[in-house]
Amino acid sequence: MTAKSATYILCINCGSSSLKFSLYHAGSLQLEWSGSVNAIGSSKSMLVIKNDAQVIEQQNGKYKNLDQAVKAVIRWLKNSSYHQGIAAIGHRLVQGGPKHREPELITGKLLKSLAGFIYLAPNHLPEEIKTIQTFQSAFPGLPQVACFDTAIHRNMPDEAKYYALPATYQSQGLMHYGFHGLSYEYILQKLSQEDEDIKNKKIIIAHLGNGASMAAIKNGVSVETTMGLTPMGGLVMSSRSGDLDPGVLLFLLKQGKLTPTQLDKLLSKDAGLKAIAGIGDVQELLNREAGDADAKAAITLFCYQAKKFIGALAAAMGGLDILVFTGGIGEHSAMIRHRICDGLGFLGIVIHQQANIQSHEIISDRTARVSVKVLTTNEEAMIAQHTQQLTYHNN
Amino acid sequence: MTAKSATYILCINCGSSSLKFSLYHAGSLQLEWSGSVNAIGSSKSMLVIKNDAQVIEQQNGKYKNLDQAVKAVIRWLKNSSYHQGIAAIGHRLVQGGPKHREPELITGKLLKSLAGFIYLAPNHLPEEIKTIQTFQSAFPGLPQVACFDTAIHRNMPDEAKYYALPATYQSQGLMHYGFHGLSYEYILQKLSQEDEDIKNKKIIIAHLGNGASMAAIKNGVSVETTMGLTPMGGLVMSSRSGDLDPGVLLFLLKQGKLTPTQLDKLLSKDAGLKAIAGIGDVQELLNREAGDADAKAAITLFCYQAKKFIGALAAAMGGLDILVFTGGIGEHSAMIRHRICDGLGFLGIVIHQQANIQSHEIISDRTARVSVKVLTTNEEAMIAQHTQQLTYHNN
Repeated sequence: MTAKSATYILCINCGSSSLKFSLYHAGSLQLEWSGSVNAIGSSKSMLVIKNDAQVIEQQNGKYKNLDQAVKAVIRWLKNSSYHQGIAAIGHRLVQGGPKHREPELITGKLLKSLAGFIYLAPNHLPEEIKTIQTFQSAFPGLPQVACFDTAIHRNMPDEAKYYALPATYQSQGLMHYGFHGLSYEYILQKLSQEDEDIKNKKIIIAHLGNGASMAAIKNGVSVETTMGLTPMGGLVMSSRSGDLDPGVLLFLLKQGKLTPTQLDKLLSKDAGLKAIAGIGDVQELLNREAGDADAKAAITLFCYQAKKFIGALAAAMGGLDILVFTGGIGEHSAMIRHRICDGLGFLGIVIHQQANIQSHEIISDRTARVSVKVLTTNEEAMIAQHTQQLTYHNN
Repeated sequence: MTAKSATYILCINCGSSSLKFSLYHAGSLQLEWSGSVNAIGSSKSMLVIKNDAQVIEQQNGKYKNLDQAVKAVIRWLKNSSYHQGIAAIGHRLVQGGPKHREPELITGKLLKSLAGFIYLAPNHLPEEIKTIQTFQSAFPGLPQVACFDTAIHRNMPDEAKYYALPATYQSQGLMHYGFHGLSYEYILQKLSQEDEDIKNKKIIIAHLGNGASMAAIKNGVSVETTMGLTPMGGLVMSSRSGDLDPGVLLFLLKQGKLTPTQLDKLLSKDAGLKAIAGIGDVQELLNREAGDADAKAAITLFCYQAKKFIGALAAAMGGLDILVFTGGIGEHSAMIRHRICDGLGFLGIVIHQQANIQSHEIISDRTARVSVKVLTTNEEAMIAQHTQQLTYHNN
């Protein structure tokens, strides 16, 4: 490896309990390596960096929080041959409020503006801003780019964008932002490469992971998505409730005597599949369900809600041509894909069982009206593209 | 009229700002007359009783609240020839908690039990219980029957019934109850009379009024409905928000600094179409929309959400054979029906424009896969049936 002679883009993707980071060649956007710190906060947390399938670094660090994980990555970089080669750093940010949707070069002014929108994403944005600042200190003067996960949804029609609540809240930023935007953008780009006519197709992309959402793409534009103001909305998820009758929250406040902070924790960390079955991991629930009624109920609810939202998004678009499964669960669980699609023949969704079990790229029956696909998403590749566009060509 | 020789069932249906009441012959269940007090709380409130199309009583009473309206009805009854002929009284109740779903003879024990479920329907149940007690005082010893609006949904499958929240709340009664049950039951009965095979059909009934919901009926059973724990859930309504990302409520609590009580009022009385356009009346919004962008946005959102929920409920059932419009808006607004159905051809929903404008019983195109109907609902007729079953045959 001749790292010093190359110029790289470093991509940073902070999750709720994981940190993903990748190094791309700034010109070709070829991947050099990618790494992750998983299970942050647990004693199992580990930093792993892989070059293709080869592990080039592994540290069992017991990283207590995201900040410790970020600093471990920076330490490794500084000791590596890649240190001097990094030309720019791109970050995934959950939310930039109504003012910041498209990728943007990070400046002091932007960070100040983002701090003013923390109230829209109090569970994610503070740590993401801190991560940017940590990299600023470690790599002073290096251009950094913020890629907002809400970008692709910015042109949704008003009926999908605004809540039926007083306008005074709308002016404070209350609207459906939608998330998983970098994933949707990547998948849409992949679809476009395969099908020139993709701009005339009605597409549902189901990004199913610990966080799960769907987007309806019509004429190449996101016209509806299941998440709303926050990533708590829409589908039931590993540990989030998804959309609720507001009376449920009033019940929890009044009858359950929860404070808003307790309510936030309950609905974002202790609800969803975890509330039903004790654990939120879909693969583990599938392993258990034969002998565990709660695990079975959790899986059934997850697939049932996905089914309902596919129906809703198809109705929002007036039809459906392509359904894409992506995200950890969407890419890897044939059983979940099967159960979600089962019974949706009236929409033209018919799975080819063998193709599904083998996770082929196309898993629908040849005769089916809707093409059902399994595609691997790559948010960091999208961050690299945006960062390149905003930094590299200007160098 | 020879009222004294007949035996009647009096049916009472309390709404949020109206009181409907009807008198049925206890044996034949033929309607004798029906009355209403509308616009309770406003200076325009008026008691009207009609026999067929003929007004037999009209009082401009400025009824300040439901209790005053109830007492005015009782006064009129006591002065009428019908007084002695009333054999039983039936009431519509919003909610009886998990213990009381099917129609039930009212006893002291039942009222005590219902009082224990006020926390599930604090905006409706107290006034409904008080109304029963007022009739008990006015007609001591007369059998009274409670008909719960949640009854038809009691056998929904677990995935439609339970929230993805900790079981401890479920044991306190937190579940999807669903409402408008008497209306759905009446419509289903009407459909059954016309079609012997109705038990094999997949049906969506859209009860669209100031309160609006939909039910999915499969194999003769309600398997899903849009409202949940309370009538605030599901579709956007005149003054209710419908389902929300829970993050929206946390935003309103934290950023909006609302108390739970203020939040309840906002989401049940000042949200929905009213929040967007200043008024919640759909007909008035339709009248205004040509020159009023907010009115247009409100109508667009209402129809868009109805469309999405039709897609979701069809997916929940795995298909759709019959779509019924009922309730004030569903029965009377051809424009709303048209806009909801527009673009749902992929589901087999195609409206025959002329039939729709003339509000025929069947408004779908002959060639369409889904039969779309407009049916007039009658909750009081259902109350009369249940009351007869529980009282009259035992006399």
